[in-house]
Formats: sequence, structure tokens, C-alpha cells
Amino acid sequence: MDIALLGGTGDIGEGLALRWAQDTDHTVVVGSRDSEKATRRADDYGTLLGERGVEHNVVGMGNEAATARADVVVLSVPPEYAISTVETVSDGLTSDDVLVSPAVSMDRDGAGFHATPPEDGSVAQAIAAVAPEDVPVVGAFQSLAAGALSDLDTELRTDTVVTGDDPEATALVRSLADAIEGLRALEGGPLAVTALVESVTPLLINLAMNNEGMHDLGVRFQ
Amino acid sequence: MDIALLGGTGDIGEGLALRWAQDTDHTVVVGSRDSEKATRRADDYGTLLGERGVEHNVVGMGNEAATARADVVVLSVPPEYAISTVETVSDGLTSDDVLVSPAVSMDRDGAGFHATPPEDGSVAQAIAAVAPEDVPVVGAFQSLAAGALSDLDTELRTDTVVTGDDPEATALVRSLADAIEGLRALEGGPLAVTALVESVTPLLINLAMNNEGMHDLGVRFQ
Repeated sequence: MDIALLGGTGDIGEGLALRWAQDTDHTVVVGSRDSEKATRRADDYGTLLGERGVEHNVVGMGNEAATARADVVVLSVPPEYAISTVETVSDGLTSDDVLVSPAVSMDRDGAGFHATPPEDGSVAQAIAAVAPEDVPVVGAFQSLAAGALSDLDTELRTDTVVTGDDPEATALVRSLADAIEGLRALEGGPLAVTALVESVTPLLINLAMNNEGMHDLGVRFQ
Repeated sequence: MDIALLGGTGDIGEGLALRWAQDTDHTVVVGSRDSEKATRRADDYGTLLGERGVEHNVVGMGNEAATARADVVVLSVPPEYAISTVETVSDGLTSDDVLVSPAVSMDRDGAGFHATPPEDGSVAQAIAAVAPEDVPVVGAFQSLAAGALSDLDTELRTDTVVTGDDPEATALVRSLADAIEGLRALEGGPLAVTALVESVTPLLINLAMNNEGMHDLGVRFQ
């Protein structure tokens, strides 16, 4: 299977690219608005994985080409670009693809971070509103700590909550999440409850800010 | 120290009463609108603890008397009664007391549970808006699984996020939370970010509904 990480040169995109390349046989397609940057980063990831003796399939290309090629497309772009990125790559999406939203909308004031969900209820629902109607949208990977994810020496022990309205699509994303060692996928329900999942990320940042020794936090439900 | 659990005959109130009675030397004051019910339940808790060989200080009385007596007052009433309960007991609160809000506001539809914060932003902030101005309000204990908490045979391994604007009051509540074995208190920031904490509870219920074998869930940040 081919997994595209649009914005795969950024924080969470880098981590997911490295983990999937290390822990699965899937082809990881690093996407960027700038195809040269995508190729360069894919090479960097390949070098890093090679040095660790990991066989891997990582390629880089522009976001549109990455989307056209991939079966699963993860919108790991900065949240403010999530909607415009979907609009840009829409032509490359088919009903066999799955669009994954790890983005959260948040803001900071003197008290700390707050969730600022869009009018649709959540970023995932806002993305579903602009994506082609027959392309299932799945919420996942919002609360992963980017630093821990990107550092392959860090053993993960964290959960991700997967939400969506298409059972096959959510099952596929759950299986891709579970394929990353130390990551456990939980079924969160329909896309309409994704706001609750997107709220966890600002909470994690507030906890890291307010508790000494806590950083790069994830969440575990038990 | 005297800790009052208003609505201490209900789910979370029962669990906190039993745990504090077991794990600390504080006096636990079980409060209820019906003082006879409060006394009866306090006796039940005492019997249960006695059978386990636990020395304890548990007494029962009406919510107003419990508030007047206690140093820390936990509003473990059903969320829809939180505001009216504060109004009822206000006369018994002084600036040396701490008012603790474990309540969350949520609703259910076909998709699952959703957070439905009041206009003030969170239940804790709504309580602060009606409480006497000089009484610090602290958010805590929202995401504890009532079943696990009440069952003293269950070893806890869960977190609670404490929020509030008065550093002394939040430190006191953190220390009371940490005094319960297996419960870890984390500092969440000012009361203005409590909505994020209150959102975790409906998420936990959705996860329990959608994942086989998961029930009585708590959360751990790591």
C-alpha cells in the first residue's frame, strides 16, 4: 500500500513517515508543496533509516503527485493549510482512497492553549465538507507527540483515537496505526465526535507547560 | 482536614469518599440534600471500610451542614444540580475554603457523547461565576472512572488534571488527589482552560462504547 504524507517534511509527518517506513512494508510517499524539498526530505529519511539497517520504501514528490499515487493520504500539513491543501489535491482523490486528518485547531492566550474548532465542529468535519463527497475522511493521529514519534530510539506507548463514518476506512486507518510499534488505535466513533479528540492536543501542551519534567506527552486510555 | 463530598451518595462521590477515608487521615463528610440519606450512606461506607480493617473518619449530614464544617467542598452532585447546589450552600463557604468542581456537561446523540460546555466556557467557570467571590474554585476529578474508584480492590493507575486560579487552592487539591493511592495529580493551568479537561469525560465514554473490553476508563498522560 502507498501512504502519502502531505506536509511530510514537518513534525508529525516526519514521525509517521519514519515509523511506517521502519515498521511496515508500505511505501511512504513524502509530499510537499515543493517537490524538490519532498525529494530531499525523503532522501534524508532514507539515509537515517539506512544507517539503522532498516529496509524501507520512501519516496518524495509534490503533494498533488503524492495524492494521485497513494491509497491513504494523511493531511499532516499545518492546520491552517489543511483546507486549502485538500482543495489543491482533490483531483487526485478517488473513492478508493482514504483521507486522514491529524490536524487540530487551537489558539493560545494568557491562560494557555484552547481548542478553537471550526464551525463544522472539528477540523476533520471541515475537511470532509470540502473533500470530494465519495472520499472517506478519517480523524487520527492528533495527539501524538511529534518529538517522540520522530525519534526512532523512543519506544512509544501511546494511543490514537480513530474516528470516521466509513467502517472500512476507519478499520484501514486503525490497522495502519496499530502497525506502528507501541501505538494503539482505538475506535472513537463517527466523525461527528472528533472535536473531543482534537481537544486533547491543547490539553497535552498545557500539561507539558505546567508540569516539570513532562514533555512530548501522549495519552493512554486505561 | 475535613473534606465534604456534596452528593457524596452518588457515583464519583462514593469513590472519593471511600478512597480518602482509606488512604488519608482526613475526615470525610458525606453530604446529601437529604441528611438522613447522608448519614445512612456514611454508615454504609464505614461498615465497608471496617470490614476491610480500615480505620476511618466518615460522617454524614445535609449539604449545608457539610459545607459549613468542611475545608474542602467537592461538588460531586449530578452536573445539572451543580449551580443550584452552590447557591444553596453559599452561606457556609468562607475564603479559607476551597470549592472543587468534578462535574462535566455533556449530551448524547446518534454519534455518541459530546461536550456541551456552558456559556462561561466550562462547568468549573460557571460555578466560579455563582460562588462567593473570595472562595477559590478548582477543577479536578472529572475523568475518574466511578466504578474503579468505588471498588477498593481495584488498583488505580490514572491521572487527574487540576485547574484553578488560586495557586494555594490548586496545590491543596493536587495534594489531596495525590494522597489517593494510584492517582496522580497534574497541574492543568488556570480555570479558563478547564473546558479541555471536561471534554475528556465524553471521549472516555465514547471509547468505552466503541471498543470491546474497555470499560471504566481513565486517562494517563505520558
